[in-house]
Amino acid sequence: MAGPRGTVRTPAFMPVGTGATVKAMFPEDVAAAGADIILANTYHLMLRPGAERIAKLGGLHRFMHWDKPILTDSGGYQVMSLAKLRRIDEEGVTFQSHIDGAALSLSPERAIEVQCLLGADIQMVLDECTPFPATREEAKTSLDLSLRWARRSKTAFCSYGGPGQALFGIVQGSVFPDLREESARALIETGFDGYAIGGLAVGEGQAGMLDMVEVTAAVLPQDRPRYLMGVGTPEDLLLSIAHGIDMFDCVMPTRSGRHCQAFTWGGKLNLRNARYADDSTPLDPESSCPAAQYERAYLHHLVKSGETLGAMLLSYANVQFYQELMAQAREAIEQGCFVNFSETVRRRYADANKDAG
Amino acid sequence: MAGPRGTVRTPAFMPVGTGATVKAMFPEDVAAAGADIILANTYHLMLRPGAERIAKLGGLHRFMHWDKPILTDSGGYQVMSLAKLRRIDEEGVTFQSHIDGAALSLSPERAIEVQCLLGADIQMVLDECTPFPATREEAKTSLDLSLRWARRSKTAFCSYGGPGQALFGIVQGSVFPDLREESARALIETGFDGYAIGGLAVGEGQAGMLDMVEVTAAVLPQDRPRYLMGVGTPEDLLLSIAHGIDMFDCVMPTRSGRHCQAFTWGGKLNLRNARYADDSTPLDPESSCPAAQYERAYLHHLVKSGETLGAMLLSYANVQFYQELMAQAREAIEQGCFVNFSETVRRRYADANKDAG
Repeated sequence: MAGPRGTVRTPAFMPVGTGATVKAMFPEDVAAAGADIILANTYHLMLRPGAERIAKLGGLHRFMHWDKPILTDSGGYQVMSLAKLRRIDEEGVTFQSHIDGAALSLSPERAIEVQCLLGADIQMVLDECTPFPATREEAKTSLDLSLRWARRSKTAFCSYGGPGQALFGIVQGSVFPDLREESARALIETGFDGYAIGGLAVGEGQAGMLDMVEVTAAVLPQDRPRYLMGVGTPEDLLLSIAHGIDMFDCVMPTRSGRHCQAFTWGGKLNLRNARYADDSTPLDPESSCPAAQYERAYLHHLVKSGETLGAMLLSYANVQFYQELMAQAREAIEQGCFVNFSETVRRRYADANKDAG
Repeated sequence: MAGPRGTVRTPAFMPVGTGATVKAMFPEDVAAAGADIILANTYHLMLRPGAERIAKLGGLHRFMHWDKPILTDSGGYQVMSLAKLRRIDEEGVTFQSHIDGAALSLSPERAIEVQCLLGADIQMVLDECTPFPATREEAKTSLDLSLRWARRSKTAFCSYGGPGQALFGIVQGSVFPDLREESARALIETGFDGYAIGGLAVGEGQAGMLDMVEVTAAVLPQDRPRYLMGVGTPEDLLLSIAHGIDMFDCVMPTRSGRHCQAFTWGGKLNLRNARYADDSTPLDPESSCPAAQYERAYLHHLVKSGETLGAMLLSYANVQFYQELMAQAREAIEQGCFVNFSETVRRRYADANKDAG
């Protein structure tokens, strides 16, 4: 994917920069780790510091020192998971800020307006992330609302959206294959620059998720990016790429980094474990990340002591691992050996888990 | 000062790396900020991860990815301020770890042994930091004990110390000029590679501190570095340099950085202040630190949101400000205009305080 702010190589993993910062990382290190694009959260930024403020300060890229592409979500997911006293109707959602209790609302139009104020390169339609589990009827009602909102989002985007900006639709339908297909076809008919698969990784399990990914991806157009929202583990990513997914985002690499966990080519490590106290091995001898060159004994010491540098190094190493995973996946796809690559990496992860467990 | 790990330009400010990390900073940024030397804390490191462990892992420089000189304190100060159930006698101090309650002891000999295990380039004698306030008699008794410990420290250093390593004595004597002089003369007679002034910035006030610095520095040899321990504000540093101080250490730049405060050439700023919410000025337009190029509005947002990046950027900017202050002081000294330079900087700080207050 190419745009005015640079090319996004796919499959791509987008580190999450919730509050205008990929947590505990300098923006130049996010770029150095190999990220072509990051995700930022509309809900968080409209609450603090405010979309109008960011616009006045020159837009989100300038504000957070990131000049490559940014994808913003629509805010809908966080309204549902974080805000208080939320009420949803045809018009949109009204809710109270989880920070200061302020009464706010979000409509499909306002969600696009906010994303345009931020200056997001890829914007998402406002949708309702269907709660899990849902009956078929609930899923259908929710999906229909999301479709009406998607059309309103597109109309708003046609007024507000600038040149070089893109709008993605979001497929819903819970775990019902026919609803997923219905949602996808209706969105395609409306016409979007890319298509996301939403409402997954919410409790349906890996097999259920992959089933829906397969069903949905089969319907989506070949010439538009396909984005699986909020997923996931390295294994999730590899299995989803096999179904044709091009884009991912997940807090896992940074959140794990702040919780003493490292993703390495040899598997996942918990650096709090006493086994690392005297381990002079680099965190990941197979990674080219500067942070992965630090010895495990030192990282163990840092996380045991609650030192910020521990979170800084592990976040950096994890974000870079995810980027290296995508880079190697791209290379394997190009060389026609993706299946073999995917199996090898997943086996190493499974073996490491057995070893750790 | 030149040693096998590089030259320390004086006057020098040593960022504090208490637990084998200058808090919230990558070691390469500490070097990029201009630091020639850092301080690490013997007390903290002997407790966690342990001096013998660090030695086995190749020494403190390798452990914490810092290949320039390291000065370690003796641990005495932290035993007094942090440890529980401490008991002091002629032999040394026994105490309980503030981390896990383990019973430990520190003698002049063990303090040197630990510093040698760490591989410190500059080591400090174990002393008793005389509590403030103290009667003349208390100060004299304490100072005499510190002198006996200093001699034992030197004897131990002669056995354990390696080539290129240095040992500094520490002048005590509370706020009594004649005791300060007595302490300094006795240490000079014993003979050390450098001389520190300890037991200040403990409540005596800036005027009292500077009086003792002046009295002590006048006695100390011209050809040995003079190190004022645990000091201080930019103003403290400039006024002490005028009395001939060569070395400083203080947690102020990093601790302030974690508490939303920035040292800039235009004065001290509190980034939590709402006045910065829409301020698109760089943190410090006069600094060449990459972190000081971030806009105040963004830093305000980060610290208000409790984002780690706020502490990372402010710590970096503050450490570099202290280094730039020292660099400009060195240049002013060389050009014979230090008095003027010192006055200008101190006036700007005073004016900024008035403005903020």
